[in-house]
Amino acid sequence: MDTADLGLPVDVPSTALFTDRYELTMLQAALRAGTADRRSVFEVFTRRLPEGRRYGVVAGTGRVLDAVENFRFDRDVLDFLAQQRIVDEQTVDWLADYRFHGDIWGYPEGEVYFPGSPIMRVEGTFAEAVLLETVILSILNHDSAVAAAASRMSTAAGDRPLIEMGARRTHELAAVAAARAAYVGGFTTTSDLAAGFRYNIPTVGTSAHAFTLLHDSERDAFIAQVQAHGSDTTLLVDTYDVVEAVRTAVEVAGKDLGAVRIDSGDLLLLAHRVRQQLDELGAKNTRIVVTSDLDEYAIASLAAAPVDAYGVGTQLVTGSGHPTCSMVYKLVARAGSDDPGAPLLPVAKKSMGAKSSVGGRKWAARRVDEHGVAEAEVVGTGEVPGELADHQLLVELVRGGEIVAREPLDAARDRHKAARAGLPLSATQLSRGEPVLPTEYLRARGGS
Amino acid sequence: MDTADLGLPVDVPSTALFTDRYELTMLQAALRAGTADRRSVFEVFTRRLPEGRRYGVVAGTGRVLDAVENFRFDRDVLDFLAQQRIVDEQTVDWLADYRFHGDIWGYPEGEVYFPGSPIMRVEGTFAEAVLLETVILSILNHDSAVAAAASRMSTAAGDRPLIEMGARRTHELAAVAAARAAYVGGFTTTSDLAAGFRYNIPTVGTSAHAFTLLHDSERDAFIAQVQAHGSDTTLLVDTYDVVEAVRTAVEVAGKDLGAVRIDSGDLLLLAHRVRQQLDELGAKNTRIVVTSDLDEYAIASLAAAPVDAYGVGTQLVTGSGHPTCSMVYKLVARAGSDDPGAPLLPVAKKSMGAKSSVGGRKWAARRVDEHGVAEAEVVGTGEVPGELADHQLLVELVRGGEIVAREPLDAARDRHKAARAGLPLSATQLSRGEPVLPTEYLRARGGS
Repeated sequence: MDTADLGLPVDVPSTALFTDRYELTMLQAALRAGTADRRSVFEVFTRRLPEGRRYGVVAGTGRVLDAVENFRFDRDVLDFLAQQRIVDEQTVDWLADYRFHGDIWGYPEGEVYFPGSPIMRVEGTFAEAVLLETVILSILNHDSAVAAAASRMSTAAGDRPLIEMGARRTHELAAVAAARAAYVGGFTTTSDLAAGFRYNIPTVGTSAHAFTLLHDSERDAFIAQVQAHGSDTTLLVDTYDVVEAVRTAVEVAGKDLGAVRIDSGDLLLLAHRVRQQLDELGAKNTRIVVTSDLDEYAIASLAAAPVDAYGVGTQLVTGSGHPTCSMVYKLVARAGSDDPGAPLLPVAKKSMGAKSSVGGRKWAARRVDEHGVAEAEVVGTGEVPGELADHQLLVELVRGGEIVAREPLDAARDRHKAARAGLPLSATQLSRGEPVLPTEYLRARGGS
Repeated sequence: MDTADLGLPVDVPSTALFTDRYELTMLQAALRAGTADRRSVFEVFTRRLPEGRRYGVVAGTGRVLDAVENFRFDRDVLDFLAQQRIVDEQTVDWLADYRFHGDIWGYPEGEVYFPGSPIMRVEGTFAEAVLLETVILSILNHDSAVAAAASRMSTAAGDRPLIEMGARRTHELAAVAAARAAYVGGFTTTSDLAAGFRYNIPTVGTSAHAFTLLHDSERDAFIAQVQAHGSDTTLLVDTYDVVEAVRTAVEVAGKDLGAVRIDSGDLLLLAHRVRQQLDELGAKNTRIVVTSDLDEYAIASLAAAPVDAYGVGTQLVTGSGHPTCSMVYKLVARAGSDDPGAPLLPVAKKSMGAKSSVGGRKWAARRVDEHGVAEAEVVGTGEVPGELADHQLLVELVRGGEIVAREPLDAARDRHKAARAGLPLSATQLSRGEPVLPTEYLRARGGS
């Protein structure tokens, strides 16, 4: 599937400029020094989870595959690079033929992760792999932040459906990716039409206060909506007086009214009152949708209230306080010399201060206890111990430049649900705490 | 200028699906009820600034104009809406001809704003104006959040240049808009090549730790970079030992070395040490660039340190704790009846709870004291008082569907600098406080 064929408005013909200039600076210098072809292994990982979070959620993997596939420098872009003297002529020529021919392994989308988890591993020549740094990080850092918030919200919501409606609170294309990540994290539907178009996520829509205000009375507005969309529609009942609106809504739509939406006020109190009123009016199957500045805590606080669905906006698309992950893309191993067959050598930054890394090409496995519950994230270099062989986390995503791991979005969504269910129970506590699994490093006895 | 002609990768052929489904739900119902053509006035405003912030910064206006111009429903999109039964056939037909023919006024880009400021006013039929809600809010909420953070950082940085380098921490296209908003807010350059390509923002790039690790020694890496880019390049000196690296850097590049970059550790301490070392080595003009998890407070804390430029990533693109603004798009006035010539009637949500609005089509002006310093944001309906006539804030952006206010990005950047300079001095305090101007409402004596 070539995303460039899929049309607008989410797809872009090329992803090659989603790149920090320093990647091209390094490329040019490496080409000139003769080190550009050294086989290199880059890994994506985080040094920590956002404060208090118990686990992270990998999201965006599918979008990374699209981005790698579309990472080509066309004539416009090459002209720009040349005219701006961003790189020299030799480098422009090299970029004109660019196509990633290396291998990518990674945690599959929807999987959970912990500090140090090798979430993605990109292997190829230095030149071809270094260029992908920014676009891979942009996608994974953004999408995983939203998915992590979505996962917590879906835990809080239990079996009640969650509607993603945050498009207006984030960049218009980030919104589309956010709807996708929210779906992976457990949301049910989105209000964002572009996300429906591009990713086939079910869309929903009700109406805004503007619609009520447009009409000469709330009753007129409800009549207009029911005539156009049938009694199964969702009527917004908090433009003026909620009690009055609910009465009017059932008068207009009948007892089969689909749902009412409450978008302001004390939701706990209002949900109880409106439920009682609906029941008294005989509209026992009319659902109650609430949508006012919700986050996972507000959702949890409504668990005992007669609420049928939650709509979440701002707090979802901004990662509920953590709008980005701190994933980095680091060179962990490279050929020991310019010889084409030179073995890999582990490398790592070793400065003072906090930003050091663990060198070496890594595998990861999730060790489980006798009940099948995860007890540690084990990360190592070299051989995988036999008892962990069946619990490895990295899967092959790209082989020799070819995408080998396309999957429907529902697969990632199902995987996330299963992965979360495999964690200790405390993973789903909303309160702040430590990562629910410790990360253990197993060093190789020799080699990398 | 049609953005669709400008090429990739930021432009999209249509913005019509950056829309919440409920806008189409309302459209269909209004078309059926005969109320779709009622003249309507929507306004964008916020009820509050992010906690502790002194002022907001309008950014994204230019992008809104692009989005409005490209808001068309092409065949693919119409088929999607029909197949998914998102709207009925009559509505699909109406959308096929959609083009905004109304008027838009707003605060010009770069201007500051306060709670209640009518940042943008969209006027047209209900049908044509209601559809623009989501895309306008997405753009303004995202871009203004980044610009507000950028503005605070540029105050803290004083005359020292600021480099935007947050692409890896946000969605890949949000990154391009963020670089643009940062430039409006006072940043000097960006690392994001797509932002350079699309918006002509100057790009810069140095190198990463990976480049040093790729080579057999730090010296080899520095030689490679200097040979490729000349001695005016910026060498990254914190991969191993900073003192050693600075010595090697000057040995390799000579006293004309452009700059060194420090990306970890105690920046205050390191900047002083490295400056002293560079001076002792005779590299008195070699600049020091620092780039480690900076925000406006960290930048301010380095004011007395010998730092020549700051690179800012995460905290910039996530709005330094406030990744979105709380701008809303509300119907504030509409024709009193279906008569084409019916006068406008102010309308407002009047429910219990906090989310009420002020009805009526508004003007805004910034009243200044005898020294020319702003003292109040005055918002009103009806006639503008004579003494405020010359201090009005809204400018015409779109007239009868035609964009009339294109401007170069530097105009917005200059405007922001001037607008901020016109505020009371306490505006630029970084500490938390109240909005630096009060918002005063002047109600019209009659009409709206």
